[in-house]
Amino acid sequence: MTPGAENAHMAETDATEAPDAYEALLDHYERIATLESAGNVLSWDQQVTMPDAGTPARSRQMSTLSGLGHELLTEADVSGWLDDLDGADLSGGRAASVREIRREHRRADRVPQDLIEEISGKSSEALPVWEEAKAEDDFDAFAPKLEELLELKREYAEHVDPDRDPYAVLFEDYEPYLDIGTAERILERLREELVPLIDDLKAADPDLADPFDGTYPEDAQEAVSREILDGLGYDWDRGRLDTSSHPFTSGNQFDCRITTRFRESDPLDALTATIHEFGHAQYTLGLPQDAFGTPLGQDRDLVVHESQSRFWENHVGRTGAFWEWALPAVREQFDGLADASAREMYEAANRIYPENLIRVEADELTYHMHIILRFEIERDLVRGDLDVADVPDVWNEKMEEYLGVRPDTDAEGCLQDIHWSHGAFGYFPTYTLGSVLAAQLDHHVRTDLDVDDLVREGEFDPIREWMGEQIHRHGCRYTTPELIEEATGEAFTADYFVEYASEKFGELYGV
Amino acid sequence: MTPGAENAHMAETDATEAPDAYEALLDHYERIATLESAGNVLSWDQQVTMPDAGTPARSRQMSTLSGLGHELLTEADVSGWLDDLDGADLSGGRAASVREIRREHRRADRVPQDLIEEISGKSSEALPVWEEAKAEDDFDAFAPKLEELLELKREYAEHVDPDRDPYAVLFEDYEPYLDIGTAERILERLREELVPLIDDLKAADPDLADPFDGTYPEDAQEAVSREILDGLGYDWDRGRLDTSSHPFTSGNQFDCRITTRFRESDPLDALTATIHEFGHAQYTLGLPQDAFGTPLGQDRDLVVHESQSRFWENHVGRTGAFWEWALPAVREQFDGLADASAREMYEAANRIYPENLIRVEADELTYHMHIILRFEIERDLVRGDLDVADVPDVWNEKMEEYLGVRPDTDAEGCLQDIHWSHGAFGYFPTYTLGSVLAAQLDHHVRTDLDVDDLVREGEFDPIREWMGEQIHRHGCRYTTPELIEEATGEAFTADYFVEYASEKFGELYGV
Repeated sequence: MTPGAENAHMAETDATEAPDAYEALLDHYERIATLESAGNVLSWDQQVTMPDAGTPARSRQMSTLSGLGHELLTEADVSGWLDDLDGADLSGGRAASVREIRREHRRADRVPQDLIEEISGKSSEALPVWEEAKAEDDFDAFAPKLEELLELKREYAEHVDPDRDPYAVLFEDYEPYLDIGTAERILERLREELVPLIDDLKAADPDLADPFDGTYPEDAQEAVSREILDGLGYDWDRGRLDTSSHPFTSGNQFDCRITTRFRESDPLDALTATIHEFGHAQYTLGLPQDAFGTPLGQDRDLVVHESQSRFWENHVGRTGAFWEWALPAVREQFDGLADASAREMYEAANRIYPENLIRVEADELTYHMHIILRFEIERDLVRGDLDVADVPDVWNEKMEEYLGVRPDTDAEGCLQDIHWSHGAFGYFPTYTLGSVLAAQLDHHVRTDLDVDDLVREGEFDPIREWMGEQIHRHGCRYTTPELIEEATGEAFTADYFVEYASEKFGELYGV
Repeated sequence: MTPGAENAHMAETDATEAPDAYEALLDHYERIATLESAGNVLSWDQQVTMPDAGTPARSRQMSTLSGLGHELLTEADVSGWLDDLDGADLSGGRAASVREIRREHRRADRVPQDLIEEISGKSSEALPVWEEAKAEDDFDAFAPKLEELLELKREYAEHVDPDRDPYAVLFEDYEPYLDIGTAERILERLREELVPLIDDLKAADPDLADPFDGTYPEDAQEAVSREILDGLGYDWDRGRLDTSSHPFTSGNQFDCRITTRFRESDPLDALTATIHEFGHAQYTLGLPQDAFGTPLGQDRDLVVHESQSRFWENHVGRTGAFWEWALPAVREQFDGLADASAREMYEAANRIYPENLIRVEADELTYHMHIILRFEIERDLVRGDLDVADVPDVWNEKMEEYLGVRPDTDAEGCLQDIHWSHGAFGYFPTYTLGSVLAAQLDHHVRTDLDVDDLVREGEFDPIREWMGEQIHRHGCRYTTPELIEEATGEAFTADYFVEYASEKFGELYGV
């Protein structure tokens, strides 16, 4: 047999065998994805309901699940099926599924399973250590865990691609299709634009209202959160609202749960967190149910996810129209607000606090300086350009440089976020990129719908449906740039965010 | 090489290689057991916290986990390691671990994985169907699910051993070492003894007190449950108390959770359920932590488990001494009981209700007639001697025959229990066998300790420690008959239960 004849035979075999390989690959992948979704339940439970002393067993459970998932993803059969499907003539949806599985397989295949299990186990161990270190303001207690996780994640990146910047490699775990170059360009653009804008706003001295100056019991705050979620259209048959130290959303298209937290003196904090997490949950609940366990039933990535939470939090929840709608609920549950107007609440919800130290309590605008700071620190940590021991000092210096304020404690500084205790390096930039995308989507949904009118009337269905149609239902059918192009007809851009921020805060602060 | 020389060589190889095979087998088994413990978290969540519409994803998650566990247990390597360890000279603990893993492996190896996954998936599907059928009193709605599960479990038993009674085979999943013959003998002995005893008690007309004739708000009942659990020594760092439609206990030695339920008119129901589940949790929490994921860190079986729950429920919680201790807490939380005495509460907690229809609300004595009825029905269903469609009639006839009462609805009859919706056939007898073992253990703990004095003083530590020492810490080191022999110095016997029941209820009813 000549080489040419052999190739011809192989091509013929591919054409007839590819569908079988596709079915086998997808069946196999469904087990992996389902295992991962089971792990999400364990993680939710760990953060919401698990008793304190349950950690040792939970760590073992989580690392067993992630280890098995890794083994399944790297089985020789998977390479075989992917080889069979190489160049196969598949429909758009099938081609997308194969693209996503191939990408996941390649990354996993390069990383030894032992390392994956070790990272998962160390992350579970680190979580309660971080919680206690934060409670005790004791960075030294957390530092060894952080160092271990950094070392393991560097090792991970080295396995994926020893020739590339390890931070760029880690970033792709959260945002696979917008490269780190794009991320850096957008973060730099924002820094250039926002620092002078924030300076202008600080210099202005508007007389902004702040009617939320009392204390608001947890049960009243929870009642408001539930009423707002009802109004926005959260599907309680597929969700729950609980509390946790850091608000988060977890689940799948059948069961997607929100957490928030309540601070007596700051009812806007809980409300904002609730609406933010609603946006995440709405995305997950909008994924097609019949594609559960396949790439077409999975969220695109963290940037797109964050665009959904930020859209609802900022472009709906921080508008004047929103406060007109929410006014009766807020007045009913909270004492002392009978005379407060929607405009006053709008002003309170949108005033900026450059002196604030806590990212998750930051206003919409200065928030991004918190992200830029974290991005720079974690990038330098991963690259080995910064020692763990120096994190508190560098953190505090950057806070002073960007926002003119210096934390007194590490609990209010470099210990405030949960992410690094998960070994999540490269995650933070997705928050700002998500906000940028939210502004771009907001521009386009407002081209199609009168969003302010709808919000004012509490008619959120058309807005939810627009996002469902443009974003949610596609799962991973498109890459991120393709999805943005599909939804908006243009490439990813920071223009709308810059324009939106300048106009909104310019009006509010009279600059 | 002569055969003799070859054997000598093999023996030598075994002696040196067996430890490696043991380590490999145990490492592998730990993954299986850890996967199973992860599945328990999913199951707890499904019954306690999961939103209603989450079932499709949860079913997939559960069947994926159980399928993977089955695959791991039946891998060729496992057979190889077990063969290597056949006849190896192992310590008692190691030999016990190998015995348990060998038994599990053999059973699993004979059952196709597809069938295991199907049973798991159908069980998850059946649960909400049963819940709704019970709520709607609609047996026909549940019947097809029951039929499917019976068919699948018959198929399962056939794979394990086609030559044996399928019910005997299924029973061994819950109680592997006391055979069905022992179970039947004990149930028959109890029926012979208890039916005339119950008749005598019914004929007697004592003036028993019943001070719990008011309504008791859920929060007061919960406060009592929590206070009693505090006093008994439940470790809240490793546990929680929640509510579910059927009380249950789930977890491991790091995290073992109780559920109960509250009925306004019957505070004894919740309290009894709470103490019962405390006994289960106490066993699980008493398993050695360093043996998590191995047979030595696992509970022996359901009979031993039930002996622990029944010991605390009946031999502690239904004693006069217990009510002397609990009196202040109950008086404080419940209105209208200021004048009630401990003796009156003792009488209320121990009066029998032969007319009661609900197993989990049954008194300590007539309870066993409920079990005998279920045992006979499920045995006949599994053997194919009874049609699913005839279950309601047969149930009602047996209730009339054994307890002189006939349910008006199937919700109060054959739909009342969760077990069959799990495909758990062969489970029910373990309740009564557990009670019988509880009485035997109670006799022996009272030989060593003055239990009544300790209970009266709220000093539960020595009692918990006795059970921990005799039962909990051993995990699966011994078979059930060995464990009973170790703890009591004698074989399993119903004598103590019969004696205890006759004396206690004889005194109470004056017969």
